[in-house]
Amino acid sequence: MREVAVIGTGLTDFGEVWGKSLRTLWAEAALAALADAGVDELDLITVGCMSPGLFIGQEHLASLVADELGMAGVGAARVESACASGGLALRAGFAEVAAGLADVVLVTGVEKMTDVDGATATYSLGTAADQEWEGFHGITFPGLYAMLARAHMEAHGTTREQLAAVAVKNHANGLLNPHAQYHLRVTMEDVLRSTMVAEPLRLLDCSPITDGAAALVIASVERARELVGDRPLVKITGSGLATDAISLANRGSLTELAAVRLAGERAYRMSGRTPSDIHVAEVHDCFTIAEIMATEALGFFDEGSGGSAVEKGLTALGGRIPVNPSGGLKSKGHPVGATGVAQIAEIVAQLRGEAGQRQVEGARIGLAQNMGGSGGTSVVHILEVA
Amino acid sequence: MREVAVIGTGLTDFGEVWGKSLRTLWAEAALAALADAGVDELDLITVGCMSPGLFIGQEHLASLVADELGMAGVGAARVESACASGGLALRAGFAEVAAGLADVVLVTGVEKMTDVDGATATYSLGTAADQEWEGFHGITFPGLYAMLARAHMEAHGTTREQLAAVAVKNHANGLLNPHAQYHLRVTMEDVLRSTMVAEPLRLLDCSPITDGAAALVIASVERARELVGDRPLVKITGSGLATDAISLANRGSLTELAAVRLAGERAYRMSGRTPSDIHVAEVHDCFTIAEIMATEALGFFDEGSGGSAVEKGLTALGGRIPVNPSGGLKSKGHPVGATGVAQIAEIVAQLRGEAGQRQVEGARIGLAQNMGGSGGTSVVHILEVA
Repeated sequence: MREVAVIGTGLTDFGEVWGKSLRTLWAEAALAALADAGVDELDLITVGCMSPGLFIGQEHLASLVADELGMAGVGAARVESACASGGLALRAGFAEVAAGLADVVLVTGVEKMTDVDGATATYSLGTAADQEWEGFHGITFPGLYAMLARAHMEAHGTTREQLAAVAVKNHANGLLNPHAQYHLRVTMEDVLRSTMVAEPLRLLDCSPITDGAAALVIASVERARELVGDRPLVKITGSGLATDAISLANRGSLTELAAVRLAGERAYRMSGRTPSDIHVAEVHDCFTIAEIMATEALGFFDEGSGGSAVEKGLTALGGRIPVNPSGGLKSKGHPVGATGVAQIAEIVAQLRGEAGQRQVEGARIGLAQNMGGSGGTSVVHILEVA
Repeated sequence: MREVAVIGTGLTDFGEVWGKSLRTLWAEAALAALADAGVDELDLITVGCMSPGLFIGQEHLASLVADELGMAGVGAARVESACASGGLALRAGFAEVAAGLADVVLVTGVEKMTDVDGATATYSLGTAADQEWEGFHGITFPGLYAMLARAHMEAHGTTREQLAAVAVKNHANGLLNPHAQYHLRVTMEDVLRSTMVAEPLRLLDCSPITDGAAALVIASVERARELVGDRPLVKITGSGLATDAISLANRGSLTELAAVRLAGERAYRMSGRTPSDIHVAEVHDCFTIAEIMATEALGFFDEGSGGSAVEKGLTALGGRIPVNPSGGLKSKGHPVGATGVAQIAEIVAQLRGEAGQRQVEGARIGLAQNMGGSGGTSVVHILEVA
């Protein structure tokens, strides 16, 4: 298997972007990544996007955006695994380069979510749950994650304040990220007094509806060395993909995210790393409980102790293992198809030492964990600076 | 790059299947492929599906169907490139095995199209066209292909009867395929007298709306040799993926399918084969004109001579290069995400000598060409029996 490196990243600002269409947002991120990599020829484009059909009435997105970039002709493929679509786009590009089918691939993620009203957005996101076993009964994602939170609180004594601590930390980090949707200091009291959405989850436990795009240029290490010059070379050393039942009713356990554990195990095995080797992580905090459960499933903390870990500051900047220095989905925003790609862009910035005020000192090994639905799919990548 | 082989195939009957849901159809094809291959453990599942969001209100399909198969945990990924989604599912699985990321992959395609009314189905399929440059103005696919047909007729003298000859041939082949949606002998007169849809295309120039699923088991050649026993080993020797502008207005030419030409060139180059080496082909005849243009773009016939070739019987069973022995999309049916996978299943049957009454004598090298939209994406695979 050939070694693969990330040689360029590009991000749009995340937010409610009413003045740009999906294809314009996508091209902005793509051009930024190509400029960062110093590349103008590609073998392939991958596009992670959850539901352009429901959000903007457009399928067949990959060839559309290839043409928008002036690159009609190049191979292009869209991949989808709900909110894990971005991570899957990297996995698909990684496989092509690792196999030798491509040398240089543009890996992208995008979602344009604010062109529809809130009810339509909620319906569209809800199609990531099992429509026959969950959607039919009227439940949407805040309700599904609320059940996971309740189960975790019952089983492990996780507290309402520990959930809130995730939001407080990630909003503090987001203040340091110029691309973030929210630059908003949030206190424990703010979270605990925010509007109830689905008990025990309140408004400030939830990630927002967001427009945005993210892009990476990846290449074989041989080609990458020619292109990066004096900049640090960031290799992808582990890639893990796993599923779980998408409906909670079919799960073996409600207190662990099995797909995250499996995807993590596969990525650790490929890279030869263990959880204690990781210096910085971006994890999928679509709701505050999700970050707590993900940090347990990835082996950063023992089962049931993710809540106390965030409360003690172990996952803050300067803590034992900083989690979501970008601000996470919670503060940076969550344009669902773009999220997994944006996570990698943050890890690359950290490993290159280019993360500015939110830089994790001495970060040389990073991990990104992206998730679909209430944990039906997870993708984990491990990156290391050479 | 590791060599990859197809070791099992499975198909549902194609048609209007009101008694089975998408997941049931999918599992039927998947179980048939696993039984054919004699495999019960997988490293990965790929799923080609164009728009489960619009057709059945369900995204996040790959983990849903992995669970339906009792295999929650295994990695699973959906890919989409409109009606080329099935071909892309094979490409994605091929890359994973070629890279050494997986040994055994279940490659699948599915679409459930008849759970919505005809207008919704037409709208949903129309999202494969450029919504800003085409869909907005009200055009749908029969109109887009009618413009391609008109351009081809003007440039090359292709006749109305030559278009009809494609339908007559493919319906004759479909009579020999037990999985086909239509077992219907169609005459030249039937086509020429059928209802006008979009001049010059009539009802019998168009492929139908179809429910169905198709599946393949692919494996590294090393693993495949252990599994196939005495049966012939069918290797994937070429894989090509290419795009063109998805809107006709952005195309360089309306009389050639550039994405098909490029994808074909890439597949021929990888396999070291030329068009004259191919013994049997399945091509994407969503409309009769599409088959004529595809056989030209793939180099089977000179530009402008695809119409006379079908008229002379060169593409019939027993002709110089039999095209669509399965009956093609025209007669076998076109469950869009399943089509590209079903094409491969037909080529494998031909190369194994298991195609019954529609067997192409001595077929050892076959080609399948799958297409999205009006040619915005194409995927070409070349298979050879060892």
